[in-house]
Formats: sequence, C-alpha cells, structure tokens
Amino acid sequence: MKKTTIHDIARELNITFSTVAKALNDHPRIAASTKEAVKEMAIKLNYQQNKLASSLRSGKTRIVGVLVPTLDVSFFSSVVHGIETVMNSNGYNILLYQSKELYADEIRGIDTFLQTRVEGIISSIALQTSDYNHFIDLKKRKIPLLLFDRIVDEIGVPYVRIDDYGGGFMATEHLIKQGCKRIVHISTDQNVTIFKERLQGYKEALIKHGLPVDDSLIFTGHLSIELGRNCIQQLVNENIEFDGVFAFEDYTGLGVLKQLKELKINVPEQVKVIGFANEAFGAHITPSLSTVDQQTVKMGEEAARLFLKLIKENKYYEKEPEKIVLDPLLIPRTSSE
Amino acid sequence: MKKTTIHDIARELNITFSTVAKALNDHPRIAASTKEAVKEMAIKLNYQQNKLASSLRSGKTRIVGVLVPTLDVSFFSSVVHGIETVMNSNGYNILLYQSKELYADEIRGIDTFLQTRVEGIISSIALQTSDYNHFIDLKKRKIPLLLFDRIVDEIGVPYVRIDDYGGGFMATEHLIKQGCKRIVHISTDQNVTIFKERLQGYKEALIKHGLPVDDSLIFTGHLSIELGRNCIQQLVNENIEFDGVFAFEDYTGLGVLKQLKELKINVPEQVKVIGFANEAFGAHITPSLSTVDQQTVKMGEEAARLFLKLIKENKYYEKEPEKIVLDPLLIPRTSSE
Repeated sequence: MKKTTIHDIARELNITFSTVAKALNDHPRIAASTKEAVKEMAIKLNYQQNKLASSLRSGKTRIVGVLVPTLDVSFFSSVVHGIETVMNSNGYNILLYQSKELYADEIRGIDTFLQTRVEGIISSIALQTSDYNHFIDLKKRKIPLLLFDRIVDEIGVPYVRIDDYGGGFMATEHLIKQGCKRIVHISTDQNVTIFKERLQGYKEALIKHGLPVDDSLIFTGHLSIELGRNCIQQLVNENIEFDGVFAFEDYTGLGVLKQLKELKINVPEQVKVIGFANEAFGAHITPSLSTVDQQTVKMGEEAARLFLKLIKENKYYEKEPEKIVLDPLLIPRTSSE
Repeated sequence: MKKTTIHDIARELNITFSTVAKALNDHPRIAASTKEAVKEMAIKLNYQQNKLASSLRSGKTRIVGVLVPTLDVSFFSSVVHGIETVMNSNGYNILLYQSKELYADEIRGIDTFLQTRVEGIISSIALQTSDYNHFIDLKKRKIPLLLFDRIVDEIGVPYVRIDDYGGGFMATEHLIKQGCKRIVHISTDQNVTIFKERLQGYKEALIKHGLPVDDSLIFTGHLSIELGRNCIQQLVNENIEFDGVFAFEDYTGLGVLKQLKELKINVPEQVKVIGFANEAFGAHITPSLSTVDQQTVKMGEEAARLFLKLIKENKYYEKEPEKIVLDPLLIPRTSSE
C-alpha cells in the first residue's frame, strides 16, 4: 500500500500543504477546527508523521527539557503543568527528568537532555547542589537555560520565582494578627536562597510588630514530616513556650500537626500553624493546614512564556537575564484561624 | 590527570569549540566527516561525556521513555521511582512524558520519544484511549514497548500489573468481615480493564459470602473527589441504605469521606470505607483511609528489570510476551476498623 503523505491529507481537505504541516505541528496560528479536521483525516488515512525528518530539516527538535528535583510534591508537578500548557500550545513538547534532589542526578539529567538535542532546559535546582558548573557550562555552550523557584543569582540566567521574603513575612504576620506572641520557625540546614529569604521575612515581621527574635524558637533540619515532629517534641521536652509555628514548607507543617495531635495540644486553640507551598494534601487533612500559595501554575506558564520569547529573539544570552518575581498568596485554613 | 575538555578536542582537530559542541550533539548542520573526526578524538582523549561517547560508538542512547497518564498521583510517581532506580543502576536514564489521560497527548508523547531516539518505551495507558494503534505501531516498528498497570491484552506486549480482581475481592471481603451487609461500589464509566476487574472482584466476594449483588449499590462516573461526594449524596437523597463503601480508587474514596463528614454520618461507626491505590494522602487524613496497595515501587522495578532483560536478549518481539502479575496488599486504616 502506498504510504500516505501530507499531500494526500491536503488534497482530501482541499487546503494547502503548508496548512496541513502547520496543523500537524500544532502551530498556534492554525484554527482549532482545522487542526481537528487534519488530525481526523490523518488518522483516517493512517498518516505517520515523520517528526524526526521534519526536525532534521529545520534543525529544531521543538523539545524542551524540564529538570526538577521531584515530581512527588504538588508544587513541582503543578509548575510543570503550567510549563506544559504553554509549551504545547506553542507547538513544543517537554520531557521531564527528576534529580531526586541529588547533585549527581542533576548532572545526569542535563547529559540526558543534551543527548536528545533539546532546544533548552528549564530547571529548579536540587537541594544537594552547591556547585553550579553544570549549569554555567550550559550557558557557556549557549544552550538556553531558565531557572524557576530554586534559583541561584550567580548562574546569571533568566528566572521566575516568587517573593519568598514577602511570603515569609506574610505567613508570620498572619500568625501575629491571629494573636500569636511566641512563633516558632522551622527551616532547613541547607544553603538554599529561597528558604533563607523565608526566614528573613519571619524575622522582619516579628521586628515590625515589636516581638523579639528568639533563637531558641528557630529550628533547622532536613525537609521532612519527621523534622516537624521532632521540633515539636523538642520544644515540649525542653518546656519552651510557643503559641504559633511557621514551617518553611507544608510537609514539615504536616509533621508539626501530627506531633501536636499526638501530644493532645489543640490546633488552632493552643497553637496556630502555617506551612508554605500549598501542597494538595493541606486542604484535606484535619485540621486543614494554612499555607502560602506560590502561584505554581502561573509560575510554570510565565517560565515557559519567557523561555519561548527569549529563544525566538535568538539572542538568549546577549542581554541582562530577565527576572520575573511573582507575589505569594496567603491561604488561611483551620490550623491558624 | 587534567580532565579533557571540549577545547582540547577543538585544538587537536584545529576546529572551533562550537563545531565540536555541535558535532557531539549530532547537530544536522555539521558534516558527517567532521562528526566522525570529533567522535574519534573524543574517544581518543577520553572526553568526560563518556556516556555520550559510548552512545555514539554503539548507536544506543541508553535512554528509555516513560509515558504515564499523570505524575500528580502517588501511584504513578511511585512506579516511576521503581523504574528509575533499576534503570539508573543499569546505566540507563529515563525521560518522562505525561499524557494527561488524553489520547492525543499520548500520541504526542510517543512521537516526542521517537524523535529523541529512546531505546524503548514503558507506558501505562490514558483513560481516554480506546484506539491502540499508536502502541501497535511501535510493535510493528520493533520498538520495545512494555506496559504496566493499565494494560491492554490485545496490544500483545510484555506487561506488569497487579491482580486487580483479587484486589477488588480483598477490599470487599475486608468490609464484609468488618460486619458490612450493604456495600456500595463506585467505579468508572470508562472502558478500563483493571477497573472492571475490581468490580468483578467486588461481585464475587459478595456472592462468596452469600450477600446479594444489588445494582442500586453500584455507581459509575469519572474518577474524581466529586464522584465520591455525588454518590453519597445520591444514596442519601434516595434513602438507599448502606453500611460500607468500596471506592475503585482513593480520590473517589476521599470524596466519600468528605461527604459523609458533611452529612454527619460517622466513619467507621455507621459506614466503613475503603479505597484503592494507597495514595500518599490516605494515611494523613482523618479518619485515615483504608486502601489496597499495589506494590508500586516493586511494579516499577519489575517493569524495568523485565524490559532490560528483554532488550538484552535482543529478540524483544520474537517470543510470547512475558506477563508479571503482582499481589495486591490490604492496608486497613481507621475508615474501616
């Protein structure tokens, strides 16, 4: 049987070859109805699109690599949805790689993407990473790199993130307005800018409202449910008074709630709790967990739009890197009201 | 010993750095003879991107594409971790693509993987998909395909899944042993084998224990929290008596728990509830949700091991497809005890 070509589809639908080609590549200027008709005819005629051939012709793969620490948490999976939506509607596809928060796996991910000839990489940096040469190397090789959320200024590439300082301030001020006087902050012991900024926001909010910054109320450890549990247990063991907890992210906040429940300390009556990141589980637990939303889908969409704009200008690294900073949103729930 | 860089290759061959980079990335504008020279020099100088060099030597990318409906639910992200662990420890990397449960996106995912020259694809089928030609086509083209969980026998490729019939039987029998006499089952209206098998297991467990199969207790709809909520509301509106609910997956089970709470029907005292899939949130909600665990990490590991075994034998489609069926595990929690 003769193989169906793009010309056969064009003839059947009485449209041009170029319209069919664009429709098959999901080009944004082609009407949805035309795309639908082309797709249906392509299936009817058993057309096999040779994307490899077309990508070799153009020299462009229209694939972007998205390298994230993990897809297990809704923060990252939700940002990825935002990236995906904008990329797909612009005729690009994304491939995903998880670094599992590990430096070595982050390098593997970059290698894998380079092997597949992606047109660029969008990434959020692993917690373990403190040497950024693999990212700087991409820049040297003129491979477009855009960072989101866990960004590092010294890499010198475009990025999208939220105002983490503002988010930390907002979370702490919320607890103060709810009447808390002795607010615990749980953060990480790792050197990650965004978490340091949340801590700074916490301190500034206390100062603004005339409350002391008490180091015995500031804890650090590794991001986990256990971290939240252990901090509460330690506070109770050491008879340190507290009436509020601002956890630097929701899983730690979940640990806080679990341990308080185990110790029969009532939330929000005796202790008010707020997390950060608006993870999906927070709305479903009892009490539901107050949190700070990071506009994840918008963050992904903005990242993809900025990336596409910059690669279309075709001078990705010729200007000062563009930076987009989104506002955090307070999500008060039962755990603090 | 000083590490070989791309500059060393460029100097040795008296060509530019950028030409070497492009040649190593198989850029279409670089002559085949140049690519060959660069490859040889890279190998001679033991250039650091060993993986890339070795893939160029062997013509193998050592990349496997993993195409899943979504990474937002812990079932899929956990299977992916299992696949990743085994692949990575065997020198393979995986790239991920989400079909978002959509047929068109599943096709896009396969196209994208083929463009990146993956050595094969591991996939679980989207809910919307009812035409399997894109999968059958992979088989025709001798591209290794392995399915997990949402498998379709007629595609005729190796797969790994759990015994869904056994899981449905186990969940229902658990409720019966807890004293339930009128057990609701909520399932999907979509034509998906594994969900039909869970329904069949439900019916057989009732029959085995001498309970009637009552169609007014069997509901179908689209997988969602809302589905669970609506079914409970309908049961109450229509004054249909029930004392147990077996939801075909945990998000539906979560909706059941939410609506029962809203209607002040006590769980587990008045109604006992069990879900399916052991999603991460189930242990953290109140009451915690009983469920059936699908050995997700093991499922991923088995899928990767079987895939690697078969591609190493180098006669992927020459034998009867191998099938691995894992046992489901009952996870009783507060919602049913």
